[in-house]
Amino acid sequence: MAGTRGRFITFEGGEGTGKSTQSKRLAAALEGRGLDVVLTREPGGSPAAEAIRGVLLSGRARPLGVLGEAYLFAAARIDHVAELIEPSLVRGAYVICDRFADSSRVYQGTAGGLPADVVDSLVDAAIGSTVPDLTVIIDVPVAVGLARVGHRSEGADRFESDAVAVHEERRRGFLALADRFPERCVVVDGSRDKDVVSADILALVTDRFGLDRESARGD
Amino acid sequence: MAGTRGRFITFEGGEGTGKSTQSKRLAAALEGRGLDVVLTREPGGSPAAEAIRGVLLSGRARPLGVLGEAYLFAAARIDHVAELIEPSLVRGAYVICDRFADSSRVYQGTAGGLPADVVDSLVDAAIGSTVPDLTVIIDVPVAVGLARVGHRSEGADRFESDAVAVHEERRRGFLALADRFPERCVVVDGSRDKDVVSADILALVTDRFGLDRESARGD
Repeated sequence: MAGTRGRFITFEGGEGTGKSTQSKRLAAALEGRGLDVVLTREPGGSPAAEAIRGVLLSGRARPLGVLGEAYLFAAARIDHVAELIEPSLVRGAYVICDRFADSSRVYQGTAGGLPADVVDSLVDAAIGSTVPDLTVIIDVPVAVGLARVGHRSEGADRFESDAVAVHEERRRGFLALADRFPERCVVVDGSRDKDVVSADILALVTDRFGLDRESARGD
Repeated sequence: MAGTRGRFITFEGGEGTGKSTQSKRLAAALEGRGLDVVLTREPGGSPAAEAIRGVLLSGRARPLGVLGEAYLFAAARIDHVAELIEPSLVRGAYVICDRFADSSRVYQGTAGGLPADVVDSLVDAAIGSTVPDLTVIIDVPVAVGLARVGHRSEGADRFESDAVAVHEERRRGFLALADRFPERCVVVDGSRDKDVVSADILALVTDRFGLDRESARGD
């Protein structure tokens, strides 16, 4: 079916909101319906972008400041979009990405101190027309998110180890993005039971993209 | 011999000046004297830096502009210094690097339009105290360099394909660096026969680091 472009779904939110778990569950659910699904993440998602991710999360790029981080995220995203996301969408796949450009808007912009227009122009340069069709913003109180992260076995990375006030600012930043881009962003309450959250997200995706109708048509 | 720090030698210059050939020849000559030699290059030199090199040389990072390129070079350099250059110097090795921070000063600064203080601060953030002990600037007329590059079998990369005027500006930029950092920079005429150039450089290194004296002492 040439010309049937896929759908691009991103998960956004702070630390410990359950983005990774929920993006995996959505991918499994869509695959269970026989759809072509590509599950990926940022920073990373392509070999060069994963290498840049390593430098970023090690904290080694800190001497370059927040603008340097923003450029590194942008460069990683350019590679990720060109190597994986865009070709998959062209093929007709459902691309599910755990964090994408909105994380730059919040981490380097709202909470990082870069002016919004600087981050926006870097995001635009990096993604071009590859804008998400749906962005699921998972929202949990910061204390809940940090408690969850605290239970992880490995040590905190560069971004998890920041102060609570910064996490609060990020949470507000994600909620503000939902107001700014209402046509593609949906806020989901992630403080509920995981299964309830998964069911909510699947219903949202099914409805948004008419998946029940497509199944009924046998596409 | 704990405490004997190695030596850091960089090769700089425009396209087709013979940097790669001459850095390999110097490495072979020093190895032939039984020295511990590490030959590396920029952009690249460590796995993450090589990945960033790929993004840079593909031209894919062009939407990020010259400042974006400068940050990417800096990030790659941070990784390269931390992973390879500094540990090798600490071990006592002769580290020979085909391009290093001076290329950023010329490509993104002098010829790229970024203010010198911006590039300098990125270089400082990236290299810290890992400053070259000797920088060999190989100088050839632009026409000669481009003719040599034209004879290479593969296509021109992101930087080789720029206009002649830009190459002229880079040449002037490298010569200006020799004036700015006379204690570590030496300009070598690369338009002569390769073997003559190699002999010149080896004599220079031997003299600068007292290698004949060391050999005589049996170190």
